[in-house]
Amino acid sequence: MNLMTKRELFLRACRKEPVDRTPVWLMRQAGRYLPSYRALREKAGDFLTLCRTPEMAAEAALQPVRQFGLDAAIVFSDILIPLEAMGVPLSFAEGEGPRLRPVSSAGDIKELRIPDPSESMPFVMMAIENLRSELGGRVPVIGFGGAPFTLACYALEGGSSRDFRKALQFLYSETEAFENLLDRITGALIPFLDAQARAGADAIQLFESWGGLLSARLYRRFALPRIRRIFASLKSAGVPLILYVNGASHLVEEMASSGADVLSFDSRTVLSEARERTSGAFCLQGNLEPSSLFAPREVLEKEISEILAKAPGRGHIFNLGHGVLPGTDPGKVKFLVESVERMTRSAP
Amino acid sequence: MNLMTKRELFLRACRKEPVDRTPVWLMRQAGRYLPSYRALREKAGDFLTLCRTPEMAAEAALQPVRQFGLDAAIVFSDILIPLEAMGVPLSFAEGEGPRLRPVSSAGDIKELRIPDPSESMPFVMMAIENLRSELGGRVPVIGFGGAPFTLACYALEGGSSRDFRKALQFLYSETEAFENLLDRITGALIPFLDAQARAGADAIQLFESWGGLLSARLYRRFALPRIRRIFASLKSAGVPLILYVNGASHLVEEMASSGADVLSFDSRTVLSEARERTSGAFCLQGNLEPSSLFAPREVLEKEISEILAKAPGRGHIFNLGHGVLPGTDPGKVKFLVESVERMTRSAP
Repeated sequence: MNLMTKRELFLRACRKEPVDRTPVWLMRQAGRYLPSYRALREKAGDFLTLCRTPEMAAEAALQPVRQFGLDAAIVFSDILIPLEAMGVPLSFAEGEGPRLRPVSSAGDIKELRIPDPSESMPFVMMAIENLRSELGGRVPVIGFGGAPFTLACYALEGGSSRDFRKALQFLYSETEAFENLLDRITGALIPFLDAQARAGADAIQLFESWGGLLSARLYRRFALPRIRRIFASLKSAGVPLILYVNGASHLVEEMASSGADVLSFDSRTVLSEARERTSGAFCLQGNLEPSSLFAPREVLEKEISEILAKAPGRGHIFNLGHGVLPGTDPGKVKFLVESVERMTRSAP
Repeated sequence: MNLMTKRELFLRACRKEPVDRTPVWLMRQAGRYLPSYRALREKAGDFLTLCRTPEMAAEAALQPVRQFGLDAAIVFSDILIPLEAMGVPLSFAEGEGPRLRPVSSAGDIKELRIPDPSESMPFVMMAIENLRSELGGRVPVIGFGGAPFTLACYALEGGSSRDFRKALQFLYSETEAFENLLDRITGALIPFLDAQARAGADAIQLFESWGGLLSARLYRRFALPRIRRIFASLKSAGVPLILYVNGASHLVEEMASSGADVLSFDSRTVLSEARERTSGAFCLQGNLEPSSLFAPREVLEKEISEILAKAPGRGHIFNLGHGVLPGTDPGKVKFLVESVERMTRSAP
């Protein structure tokens, strides 16, 4: 018996209230590992067109929810979209990841716009509205953005990188300009994320994909104040705020002081330790290693129960430690979702 | 007054004995940022020829010691050399990093040789002997190898990677073969590192560049037992054993149980916390962020004193958190070495 809708389930978990079972969704649950996604992507022609066409973006977000019964839909978009709206040209070469015209000087940073999201990124809000009406309030819709430090890393590097050394060197060599860049990105994100909440997003997640590169001291100086500003501005929207930081074992306390309601970790942070270090004050999200979906089912099942054993009884949202990997067997994703449901459902 | 030779200084620091000042060396101190290195590399023609020619390899190792007065020389080589000796073809494309013919099946792994280092890698031991005789026992010589998990990552991926997902997927999908690969690499490393110690290396460092990708649970299962086996075998050589793990904030306790004498961290692990978590039982090495060498001198100086403030009074070897970056100003390296010396020298 499902007494709660998935939306209630998810929102109650965010608030650490009792739930029938642990909700589960997966970062990058819409994506290349899904044949239906690859067909849609082909139809769109390219990745950015898919992001910018609300009907198709909504369809991409719905596919894994329909196919696997996931407990949340996340709007289909990319964290770099706001950078493009700020005036940083963006493209995606097939199989190569994002390319940006790198921001490389204080002058470049001064030229960045603070865009009006309803003019420059209306398709994101339209995709959220589409999702809301398709899901009829039964499944929660997650809106998102990249955290300012992570977006600054991409802007300075001109794409992805193993170590974002150009970005870190800029931090040290042009500290004032680096802070200006963070502030501009923050200024662009606040109205964008607020517009997503007003369009009907039930929760907002910030993705700090590269925050783990910084020591806690640098994180507190550069990254955290901007996240706090964003979350403080979003408080009035009344939706749960989720902070995901990749490689955050040394940043747990910093995440706890961000203003987030939900802290999301990769598989290197043991959830029971994160809970202890944050006095049990947060809903925790995570944190199965995505590569473990390549294991035989009996091993995968053990890995799932390992996560559940370390997760708080109340206030846990099951997720991966980072995105679903290309090449993942969709059957394993289905098995994962069913396993979490089976293992966490309380006796009737 | 320098009462101790650099060799005594270094070895006493490893044993946590009192020293005149904190010794300092830098990972990748010989390398592309140095004009003299670039000239030598040009003369050699390519990187692997430089590694395989003992006179030139010794010269590359000596350059930064001469130019900056560093307190240790590290033999000039590459962690992938033993993989090549095991039968994995290796090349370095200009500016692109290493390329290996990927190991991709249990069958590939069975074919890997356990090489005799005196036959397949004699140039490493000869370079150490050259260094010893050039330095006359006044400056310590560090020998090194890659840790087995890190070498397995390179072998499976066929080169470097942002996330080594092929390697992690292989760990989960072909666990037995993955363990065999680790065991073979371990079998190759033990005689190789022992031969380096017998050739005159004053200390041996294991580089676990990618161990930080694993959770502590996986690290204990896959990576740590092999490191313990290596260090146990090297104990009789009587030289300090250094374990460097990149991204190790969640692996401090695992490092402490490895059998190492010195634990080396990147800039994300605060040394005072590492010391507390290991009950002060180890010499700690590290851990200035290499990008901070791009900061103005007054900022760099503050960053150095920040490291020194967190480091143990006895049993600290100053180093970077990872290698010197290409593009680093050699003048800043000189300033760094002089600053550490000035800031840590006890009053006469």
